[in-house]
Amino acid sequence: MTRFEDLNRQEQDQKLAALRKDYQEFQAKGLHLDMSRGKPGADQLDLTMPILDVLNSQSVMHAEKGEDLRNYGVLEGIHECRKLFGNLFGMNHETEVFIGGNSSLSLMYDCIARAMSFGFYNSPRPWCQEEKLKWLCPVPGYDRHFAITELFGFEMINIPMNQDGPDMDMVKELCENDPAVKGIWCVPMYSNPTGITYSDEVVRKFAALNPAAPDFKIMWDNAYCIHHLSDHPDHLLNLMDELRKTGHEDMMITFASTSKISFPGGGVAAMACSKANLDFIKKQISVQTIGYDKINQMRHVMFYKDLDGLQAHMEKHRAILEPKFEKVVTMLEERLGGLDVASWNKPNGGYFVSVDVMEGCAKRVVSLCKEAGVVLTGAGATYPYGKDPKDTNIRLAPTMPPVSELEQAMELFCLCVQIAALEKLTEN
Amino acid sequence: MTRFEDLNRQEQDQKLAALRKDYQEFQAKGLHLDMSRGKPGADQLDLTMPILDVLNSQSVMHAEKGEDLRNYGVLEGIHECRKLFGNLFGMNHETEVFIGGNSSLSLMYDCIARAMSFGFYNSPRPWCQEEKLKWLCPVPGYDRHFAITELFGFEMINIPMNQDGPDMDMVKELCENDPAVKGIWCVPMYSNPTGITYSDEVVRKFAALNPAAPDFKIMWDNAYCIHHLSDHPDHLLNLMDELRKTGHEDMMITFASTSKISFPGGGVAAMACSKANLDFIKKQISVQTIGYDKINQMRHVMFYKDLDGLQAHMEKHRAILEPKFEKVVTMLEERLGGLDVASWNKPNGGYFVSVDVMEGCAKRVVSLCKEAGVVLTGAGATYPYGKDPKDTNIRLAPTMPPVSELEQAMELFCLCVQIAALEKLTEN
Repeated sequence: MTRFEDLNRQEQDQKLAALRKDYQEFQAKGLHLDMSRGKPGADQLDLTMPILDVLNSQSVMHAEKGEDLRNYGVLEGIHECRKLFGNLFGMNHETEVFIGGNSSLSLMYDCIARAMSFGFYNSPRPWCQEEKLKWLCPVPGYDRHFAITELFGFEMINIPMNQDGPDMDMVKELCENDPAVKGIWCVPMYSNPTGITYSDEVVRKFAALNPAAPDFKIMWDNAYCIHHLSDHPDHLLNLMDELRKTGHEDMMITFASTSKISFPGGGVAAMACSKANLDFIKKQISVQTIGYDKINQMRHVMFYKDLDGLQAHMEKHRAILEPKFEKVVTMLEERLGGLDVASWNKPNGGYFVSVDVMEGCAKRVVSLCKEAGVVLTGAGATYPYGKDPKDTNIRLAPTMPPVSELEQAMELFCLCVQIAALEKLTEN
Repeated sequence: MTRFEDLNRQEQDQKLAALRKDYQEFQAKGLHLDMSRGKPGADQLDLTMPILDVLNSQSVMHAEKGEDLRNYGVLEGIHECRKLFGNLFGMNHETEVFIGGNSSLSLMYDCIARAMSFGFYNSPRPWCQEEKLKWLCPVPGYDRHFAITELFGFEMINIPMNQDGPDMDMVKELCENDPAVKGIWCVPMYSNPTGITYSDEVVRKFAALNPAAPDFKIMWDNAYCIHHLSDHPDHLLNLMDELRKTGHEDMMITFASTSKISFPGGGVAAMACSKANLDFIKKQISVQTIGYDKINQMRHVMFYKDLDGLQAHMEKHRAILEPKFEKVVTMLEERLGGLDVASWNKPNGGYFVSVDVMEGCAKRVVSLCKEAGVVLTGAGATYPYGKDPKDTNIRLAPTMPPVSELEQAMELFCLCVQIAALEKLTEN
């Protein structure tokens, strides 16, 4: 294929006219497709239906430590569930793991909310009493992370994402020289949306940071830690192991959930951090709640049993998802490869394919798709304040639609990327 | 029985010596009984076991509006569950009801936490920016309420509880003249711990308040709204109906949960307030979470069906609990009646019996009981900061122990109340 830029103006005009004709045909189809959110498809949810049978009215309702699952108490979660997540995190389930409700996002929000009102155990003062608060945001990133720090009034600073993780020189420079910088959002494995996994070197650089703020926090959202889509899955170095070596154990809180393993909304979420952090946090959580849903915790333990069980279950998800990601990436290659109008990753896991279209074209592509019946994640959503400075990044979420719909949606998407590019090239 | 005060000193000494002998016999028994927390007993939890059968791997997993219960979304809770709680609250389920996670306490904590960071929709500023914050606390009251306002740094002001509710003259005086007074905790029905229900007049006085703070909030924790223990249950006037008449709909947020209907920790919690309040609150909650556990919401709707179903289920709880409360009150009457060393209520519902012992004796009674193997709620726990100024109130929680254990515990309790009283009368 010839690069669009290498076509002469007449060829560009002809190509654009032809693409617009194709686009009109698409509009006539009256599609109603959605590639906007990272939701599992119904077939993935079906995989977990037997979890609804593991507890019934005849079940013994006691945890291994003897607590009645049905009654109040056990703030930190039942022991067997902490063990399961402790293995997932590679952290100490007795002292470092806390099982929350159904949402790791809530656990993150609550961590920031508590820090605002009370600080962390080693904070000079509650964060709301700081004159200025800043937060580092690797971009493109997860809109719901950014929404939390936006709501609490942080100045969010964009950190470019490279193929091996965030630009660590910039992270180091900013956090080590400015005590107003209180933390950073990270999705270290199969990052939302770029799909990359932080390299060992990047993880070690995180552990070696010496932030100016004593209570600087790496919010390590390991949402996709076992969400592989390949025979050669990525490997993420255990940040806590590295932090123990540098003596910075208090610098990280990590999060995960079964939202994309069992059921979103009906799953179990957990966080893990140093004992010192957790002991302090638990004092405040004990005022917020008497305890989370132990019955659902037990349901998950009984269904998945252990880390091997979780991983075996993820293979079933992979069998459903891998063809969808294959389809997306293949169509991108077939239809956009060589045109030099977009770049993308082929992720080894996670929930997204991130596409960078020509500068200044992302909004136009999303809008063109929408007008032809395909909803994409809003352009800019992957940046703080919804502002993608170069208007270039688009997050594709291929998990929910069936492959047939995905094919139609991707056909339209690739068409719109080309149209927007040619519109730009021919605008003068 | 003769009032202890009317005995002469020698009789008092003899009586005390005899009681101490009985007490030593108790100590020798090596009891391990707990009357400290308002937990349902295992037999009550058994009532709800069939809820674990209503959804299984073969179930249709869609709500009536078509949403997949297993996937993300539906922030405010599924329609059918909002309808159930709307009927319980007597409020509009479309616009005024929000279904949360498993804990109404969390919903309350979150309301205060959000107000601290963001205020309510009609707040002059976030509460954390106020120079001074005060909160009204009817006493004796619920320790976990007081813990929330203590954690966030409110100055808590004791409001005496009368037989018909809080002292409304004092409430009016304080909230109408001091804009630092931001709200009040209320358990309006079968109050924790006194068991009384607010009279119609008290509810109307709440609705007629004109607080100095525009965002003053009545936190109306209707935890025991259908938790009757009598053929002649109390009736609580619907506060929201009264607030609509006075045009003060924004002044109240009400809370309830199924914690003491189905399973504590495995239940469903809800709050209700004016549409204006809820619309504002929901914007912030949408940053905290994508949604709560819809599967458990549906489980509850399918099991209880409607308000009649809930009420029928509460009759089963009553059959278990009424004999326990009878036992407690009968033993109090038999062993302490006429001695003028304690007063108590016979509640028509709820989870507690509140006993006021002789001034300065509550701590001593709790300590005596503990040393003989019976754990009571800590003396002072029913007051802000754990400080009962007259050291007089003790909360008895009769729901968890079996009747036989309750009998032993109450025998000891009545003994200790007498000992502490005689110790006080003979101390000079």
